Amino acid sequence: MIRIGVDMMGGDYAPLEAIKGAEAFCKKDPSESKLVLIGDESKISPLLSDAPGLSPSCYEIVHAPQVIEMHEHPTKALKEKTQSSISVGFHLLASGKTDAFISAGNTGAMMVGALFSIKAIEGIIRPTIGAYMPREDGSMGILVDVGLNSDCKPEHLNQFALLGSLYVQHILNVQNPRVGLVNIGEEEGKGDLLAQAAFPLLKENPNIHFIGNIEGRDILLSKADVMVCDGFTGNVVLKFAESFYAMAKRRNIQDAHIDRFDFEQYGGVPVLGVSKPVIIGHGISRATAFYNMIEKAQRMVKTNLVEKIKESLHS
Amino acid sequence: MIRIGVDMMGGDYAPLEAIKGAEAFCKKDPSESKLVLIGDESKISPLLSDAPGLSPSCYEIVHAPQVIEMHEHPTKALKEKTQSSISVGFHLLASGKTDAFISAGNTGAMMVGALFSIKAIEGIIRPTIGAYMPREDGSMGILVDVGLNSDCKPEHLNQFALLGSLYVQHILNVQNPRVGLVNIGEEEGKGDLLAQAAFPLLKENPNIHFIGNIEGRDILLSKADVMVCDGFTGNVVLKFAESFYAMAKRRNIQDAHIDRFDFEQYGGVPVLGVSKPVIIGHGISRATAFYNMIEKAQRMVKTNLVEKIKESLHS
Repeated sequence: MIRIGVDMMGGDYAPLEAIKGAEAFCKKDPSESKLVLIGDESKISPLLSDAPGLSPSCYEIVHAPQVIEMHEHPTKALKEKTQSSISVGFHLLASGKTDAFISAGNTGAMMVGALFSIKAIEGIIRPTIGAYMPREDGSMGILVDVGLNSDCKPEHLNQFALLGSLYVQHILNVQNPRVGLVNIGEEEGKGDLLAQAAFPLLKENPNIHFIGNIEGRDILLSKADVMVCDGFTGNVVLKFAESFYAMAKRRNIQDAHIDRFDFEQYGGVPVLGVSKPVIIGHGISRATAFYNMIEKAQRMVKTNLVEKIKESLHS
Repeated sequence: MIRIGVDMMGGDYAPLEAIKGAEAFCKKDPSESKLVLIGDESKISPLLSDAPGLSPSCYEIVHAPQVIEMHEHPTKALKEKTQSSISVGFHLLASGKTDAFISAGNTGAMMVGALFSIKAIEGIIRPTIGAYMPREDGSMGILVDVGLNSDCKPEHLNQFALLGSLYVQHILNVQNPRVGLVNIGEEEGKGDLLAQAAFPLLKENPNIHFIGNIEGRDILLSKADVMVCDGFTGNVVLKFAESFYAMAKRRNIQDAHIDRFDFEQYGGVPVLGVSKPVIIGHGISRATAFYNMIEKAQRMVKTNLVEKIKESLHS
């Protein structure tokens, strides 16, 4: 039985939307996993009657009376609010009482928790977070890093490529995923010092399928499945893409593909390279996002992604 | 009389679209400027009969029989093809026979020419190129740098802010333009080492109106008029935006604001910080783009932008 910790207090629409997401998951997949709902019991319990699909066999509640608010200082809040849902969630994960943890709460606190409560896999220099980039052919690429590491060294990018490849392969079912280096020109030798130095490392990495440089205009095309860049560039691009979607919605543009830029629906991004599956959701997560986060976390546990990462570090 | 050099051989649709653009300019503004049409006379002359609006008083032709192709190596091509339209164009500009030069040809050759034929203004560490970012309120922001400087130091960003501000003020008529530092968070102290170090410089710069950090999601909002970043990030964002527009067109999305992301219509980007006005156009420039480039170049000459940059470096 897989045990997935869910922060019920994180996000703008918690705990109601978290409960609805948990309910949707339990209705679809009632036996394989148990959801560990972490949060203020007095706020969670009254809502359970509205979620009849959330059968008692499917979940248990772990009381965590405190909440780390969205704008609290991550390290300070984690230290002081030991009974917060995020602190308790990481404690359960670190002690083996859960197999994965998801939250749409304070992103900084989730990152700090992922890095310091459960730590990086041995051999991983810098864990990373990726973001999905939808393509018109229905496929999905991943841009990595999107903000956890704003200053990077070439060897970091090389590891992001590996971590992204394993995620895409095992979680998105893309065989032999193509890795592209985000750059400002196609030819080898182009780019800033980081990209210039990362290129030969990626080229010589036997554990990835490197296809060379890609440009900003290729990110939304199906050129590479894993697109590697420093977290500064990736973060600016991700937020820019989000704003393009927001603009399209404001302007009432109806288009099935544009709708796929509603990043909220994908239910957060995995922290890759840490020793347990952790997924960080958007603050604006609703039921579908929670459902997707739980489903992705289950998949990360079932496919034993962390072990696969460990193995490939030693191959 | 302002003399504007126009490369007639640069771009995918040259020389015909360049002639049409020149004609449109002459029809609108027949007296103030003389266009110096630079290129292969045997290719230009036969097309003149199709452009009756291009009155003889409005232009002269300078014969330049060679063409630097789009994929030639910039430095090598400039050196070897001394009779190319770009080489001749920069020679005319450097010797004072023209007051500005525009081209939709080989971007690299244009950059090398701008940096080495006419050189940077004294005191400018790194010239830069910016790109327009349209906003829904009808205004236009400028993102600077978008690719000329992929590795930057904090003092470079500080100068980009000044150059961008002067361009926006004098050419786009925005009074007291707001400068934002592109970053991955709003608070001071956020970002990579470059952004962290650039922030205090921008904050203390008396010649700009710095409003603080902006994020990727703010680039298309009317938060800052001048958005400063390293050329790696800016280039990736610009090409990403171009690809979003291309995607919208492929999907037949009809929207007046989305159409403003057709960067081609703006007619190229100015090279800022060099000692004469130079504008580099898209390879896909058509008549409107050429018209806009000529008009912008004329405006750069008329407003004496280069002198204004020199003055503000000593204020």
